[in-house]
Amino acid sequence: KKIVTLAGDGIGPEIMAAGLEVLAAVAPKINFDYTVDAQHFGGAAIDVEGHPLPEATLATAKEADAILLAAIGGPQYNEAAVRPEQGLLALRKALGLFANIRPVQIFEALKHLSPLKPEIIEGVDFVVVRELTGGIYFGEHTLNDRSARDINDYTYEEIERIIKIAFEIARGRGKKVTSVDKQNVLATSKLWRIVAEDVAKEYPDVILEHALVDSLAMKMITNPSDFDVIVTENLFGDILSDESSVLPGTLGVMPSASHAANGPSLYEPIHGSAPDIAGLGIANPISMILSVAMMLRESFEATAGAQYIENAVNKTLLEGVLTKDLGGTASLSEMTAAIIANL
Amino acid sequence: KKIVTLAGDGIGPEIMAAGLEVLAAVAPKINFDYTVDAQHFGGAAIDVEGHPLPEATLATAKEADAILLAAIGGPQYNEAAVRPEQGLLALRKALGLFANIRPVQIFEALKHLSPLKPEIIEGVDFVVVRELTGGIYFGEHTLNDRSARDINDYTYEEIERIIKIAFEIARGRGKKVTSVDKQNVLATSKLWRIVAEDVAKEYPDVILEHALVDSLAMKMITNPSDFDVIVTENLFGDILSDESSVLPGTLGVMPSASHAANGPSLYEPIHGSAPDIAGLGIANPISMILSVAMMLRESFEATAGAQYIENAVNKTLLEGVLTKDLGGTASLSEMTAAIIANL
Ligand SMILES: CC(C)[C@H](C(=O)O)[C@@H](O)C(=O)O
Ligand SMILES: CC(C)[C@H](C(=O)O)[C@@H](O)C(=O)O
Repeated sequence: KKIVTLAGDGIGPEIMAAGLEVLAAVAPKINFDYTVDAQHFGGAAIDVEGHPLPEATLATAKEADAILLAAIGGPQYNEAAVRPEQGLLALRKALGLFANIRPVQIFEALKHLSPLKPEIIEGVDFVVVRELTGGIYFGEHTLNDRSARDINDYTYEEIERIIKIAFEIARGRGKKVTSVDKQNVLATSKLWRIVAEDVAKEYPDVILEHALVDSLAMKMITNPSDFDVIVTENLFGDILSDESSVLPGTLGVMPSASHAANGPSLYEPIHGSAPDIAGLGIANPISMILSVAMMLRESFEATAGAQYIENAVNKTLLEGVLTKDLGGTASLSEMTAAIIANL
Repeated sequence: KKIVTLAGDGIGPEIMAAGLEVLAAVAPKINFDYTVDAQHFGGAAIDVEGHPLPEATLATAKEADAILLAAIGGPQYNEAAVRPEQGLLALRKALGLFANIRPVQIFEALKHLSPLKPEIIEGVDFVVVRELTGGIYFGEHTLNDRSARDINDYTYEEIERIIKIAFEIARGRGKKVTSVDKQNVLATSKLWRIVAEDVAKEYPDVILEHALVDSLAMKMITNPSDFDVIVTENLFGDILSDESSVLPGTLGVMPSASHAANGPSLYEPIHGSAPDIAGLGIANPISMILSVAMMLRESFEATAGAQYIENAVNKTLLEGVLTKDLGGTASLSEMTAAIIANL
């Protein structure tokens, strides 16, 4: 299996190395054969090739069986002609990565880090499904001196395929989909709600509920354990999936997956490149390591491998091996070694 | 002074009555002369006149010195040709109410209701300033069978006037403005950031910081005491102002104001019409009562009157007079009477 890695910027290279170490350690246990092809991406690619998504990177990524991305961006690229984030948006679009999946769960050992009271986060376990290649992100953008315009477009098919993903995931879990829109204002949200109702007919075993985005922004904090699968459009998903990441009390343990209709999926931590601690060897590699686990499960049906990793992470945290961001003193390499030892 | 009241639906009429009782009790203390003109609005207006914003209501509102709105909407209007919310959007537009102001603070007596840990909400005291008559709310909406489109427009002037409001408010408080956008994706946000920088030059005594909306959705929960004045566009403001309302642990104590360049301002609770408890006499009137206080301060420069009310509310809560939503047993009229007694 061909894995393309995009280490990117800031702490990206260090956490990518940690993720690959864990993959190397688990692979023999599950008879998983693979090659790794590292490519320039993000700021690192701007430095070398003047563009965040070089042609060779894209061509190689297209041929991959799965892609691992660590993190991109940094203050030195703020004035770049094409910024690292634009490379990410272009990569999503070029690979057709329309379905972004973010599991939100609470690690027993990290509960105390949450800004929320323990009784509120008790039992939190949901997935945010975000549409990733449509909507206002990819509509026409017009910037003039005295005015600006963005266009928000959705087609029935674009909505249908992401809603279906949500229902499929819900079918394998708590059998409830919460579809989020702003139906009392937006035409795209009116269409969204119609499509959600249409798709729901094919899944009589799954409950569909609708929520307005403003209301959901509250309920996510006041009643986070009410949710199973939350599905929404690109911009709302950007906001709500980041909001959901406050529940575990740290961005440092949250992986994500992005899937296309055809072609490779991409796996990445939800956090950024943390330029302030880059190169210090103190970054928390867990989001990256759990992204490797997601890759094993979702791209390679290597459920056992995913579970080995997830259990090892859990055990390591319970043993009190914690990086600085989690309130501990373990270095990146100590944390990685402990996880490998617990595999 | 002419006050137009729009009691609306659900608990609207009961809490409006409570607000007016408090106003009547405080008025003699501050020599405030006023008349009240009650008008149909929302579902109540649909019932009587077939439209949520009848012409007479709008004409009367335009002539007012201030407008008090209680709450609108209810499940019985979901299929209405023009729904109550559309009446609200039309009223905002017709009166030019471009600046929506929501103070967020924590009542000592209600701290325990917050889903957040006490150390997180300690010292929270900020204002959300939301642009209310522009953006994707008022752009063209196109709904077809197989596709939909919404248009998000902003002009330099629309952004400038709301940013100025934020700086003016910050100047009278903590001297910090956090401007929220999605500058890495949207053209309107790029313009927003340019205008914010331009306006900031006129306020050298006020600090301007920028935040991306996804990042702010996190920080509002993890670091809510960092903020003084948050300013943002219409849709982001809808989401973020509702998100901010989880901090005090209850929607029942949060007022809001909406201002125009010329003409009357409108004051309303941030919560909805709570049809499930309508008419039971158990609704919490505090958001409405504090909206009356905001009206006295912001439309009539009756600061003393506003303070009498705010202090009385505070004292009443500290005495343990709490409605059901706040964990107590006081009825709406007991709560109102206690506040009046504490004036
Ligand atoms: C970098 C940015 C364009 C991106 C987005 O808004 O999609 C990021 O916030 C994310 O959520 O992956
Ligand atoms: C009712 C609805 C149209 C309205 C809005 O989105 O502005 C409401 O959510 C609000 O915030 O006042």
